[in-house]
Amino acid sequence: MATSFPINDDDDSAYSYSKNSQMQREILDDSKEMVRDAIIEKLDMKIMLSSSNTLRIADLGCSVGPNSLVAMQHVVQALKDKYHDNILEFQVFFNDHVTNDFNALFRSLPIDRSYYVSGVPGSFYDRLFPSRSIHFVHSSCAIHWLSKCPEELLDEKSPAWNKGMIHYIGSSNIEVLNAYVSQFEKDMEMFLNARAEEIVEGGMMVLISPFTSDSLMEFFGSSLMDLVNEGKLDESLVDSFNLPMYFPSPEDMTKVVEKNDYFSIERIELTYPESEVEHDAKILMINLSAILQGVLINHFGSKIAEKTCARTVLRSEEISAWMKANAEKSGQLFIALKRK
Amino acid sequence: MATSFPINDDDDSAYSYSKNSQMQREILDDSKEMVRDAIIEKLDMKIMLSSSNTLRIADLGCSVGPNSLVAMQHVVQALKDKYHDNILEFQVFFNDHVTNDFNALFRSLPIDRSYYVSGVPGSFYDRLFPSRSIHFVHSSCAIHWLSKCPEELLDEKSPAWNKGMIHYIGSSNIEVLNAYVSQFEKDMEMFLNARAEEIVEGGMMVLISPFTSDSLMEFFGSSLMDLVNEGKLDESLVDSFNLPMYFPSPEDMTKVVEKNDYFSIERIELTYPESEVEHDAKILMINLSAILQGVLINHFGSKIAEKTCARTVLRSEEISAWMKANAEKSGQLFIALKRK
Repeated sequence: MATSFPINDDDDSAYSYSKNSQMQREILDDSKEMVRDAIIEKLDMKIMLSSSNTLRIADLGCSVGPNSLVAMQHVVQALKDKYHDNILEFQVFFNDHVTNDFNALFRSLPIDRSYYVSGVPGSFYDRLFPSRSIHFVHSSCAIHWLSKCPEELLDEKSPAWNKGMIHYIGSSNIEVLNAYVSQFEKDMEMFLNARAEEIVEGGMMVLISPFTSDSLMEFFGSSLMDLVNEGKLDESLVDSFNLPMYFPSPEDMTKVVEKNDYFSIERIELTYPESEVEHDAKILMINLSAILQGVLINHFGSKIAEKTCARTVLRSEEISAWMKANAEKSGQLFIALKRK
Repeated sequence: MATSFPINDDDDSAYSYSKNSQMQREILDDSKEMVRDAIIEKLDMKIMLSSSNTLRIADLGCSVGPNSLVAMQHVVQALKDKYHDNILEFQVFFNDHVTNDFNALFRSLPIDRSYYVSGVPGSFYDRLFPSRSIHFVHSSCAIHWLSKCPEELLDEKSPAWNKGMIHYIGSSNIEVLNAYVSQFEKDMEMFLNARAEEIVEGGMMVLISPFTSDSLMEFFGSSLMDLVNEGKLDESLVDSFNLPMYFPSPEDMTKVVEKNDYFSIERIELTYPESEVEHDAKILMINLSAILQGVLINHFGSKIAEKTCARTVLRSEEISAWMKANAEKSGQLFIALKRK
């Protein structure tokens, strides 16, 4: 392993590279035409035609690890076991939003990995990869994030106006649920269209998504309403906030995949944890806080977001009792698709 | 463009995702076997055989931009102009050390880019990409960084012991230069071997490197020695420090490429700026400080590194006079190689 000599990438420093790289820029400009000439005059079309022994794998919504690293290790091992062909090479593309901390992800990569690494910034509702370039897509705990909150929920005049609530779960208004379903269908259609272009014929995609009909998220909503009732938060801010999450059922997923028609469903299953894992309510609420804090900060600012999370975590006993009564209602959806 | 909902990736926060993701991990573990089964039972070997319209381009030593973005835009445009075939797709791999700020790079990507983006962390003296997967490699102002400082320079008993100096330039000891040349040859051999595996037959590589025989870097060395003479820095620390940079000549490069034998030299040229650009000495020294601060901090700590840079920048007038006398000695090496 070669030693690393980082340049100064601290933007606040007087010697920041990004503010002080005119010299390298000049060198670049000077060589511009030579680069161009090399391409125009020397590059051969036959480079376009190459076969390869490389399997390209993508993890969509990878976050900062370590889960994604574990998942990718597992996928690669399974592929090796299947083909037991040591000329195979693996390239893993870790994808998440451009705001994801890819630096942290890269720094936590295992040294002894047996795949080439790439990080791909961007929303998986858009195109991320060239056509027919990916063989296997994996995505866990990511597709339940909608591309945005359904707009009808924010319109006071709409029948789907979701006053005082932050989600469809817990709301008795069927129009609210319909708005979420409709957003999910639009998003998943975009998702499937993008992947249909990117995945080679015969390539596969496994999607794993939490499924719940009762939701711990309600506790965050009621913590927000407590802040309203104490005069610490404007009610209209809660009214204009809805969690951009939809938990698709097997039926939801089947409907959109069949309509899209680029993929065959190889397996679809809703499972519930067999062993009754005793979740510690406090740990669970801290987990949820980590997940939700981003959207909460985005809408309410960091002070209210922190208060909301702290209050919800403090209600662990009440939540623990609730969980005992509702545990069987939370499971996970697994779906394996093959590109036709 | 879909809205972004970042999870909390602040490690210092009580709600940090990386410390609080047991729930997602459980979901992952639960689906482990299903993922494996999908691969073992459903994935088809014919996915291995696909042709494609994608050109894969790598920028080695990309740093945090904006130079790399400019270079890649230029390469892609030249490829488009050559083939004027709008079914072509481009995938650009931005490579730099794992300590590079990829987050900053990703956040500065132009929205209207016409290529798919990937970030690849790692040293370019190691393998970075699957075999025969890259069509065009670009690297500007990067290959003059050696993988490490030549070890002989640090050995008091070696004839290449580089006491009181920080580079071969300025040293009258030919053994010091030989040690640098030998390290460069070893490194470039590793570099070419790695690229020979990665680049498709007929694929190309352009390397651009600064070339100088007199060096502004000497001023940093003398600033360090000033600190020694003032009793603010231990002399042995300077003796054990050497800049891990070698500026290859066309002859150096030709020798190592011909020995390696995987690439043909399509063009090699040492050029000097035509228009006598009036470099402002102060701006230039700030630029150099940005480049060198990383290695200086690594060896001397941030306090001495900062003092050294600040002192050197303060000597701008003296440096300006020196530059007027030495301007013609600094140029750049361009080399275009084709994979045989």
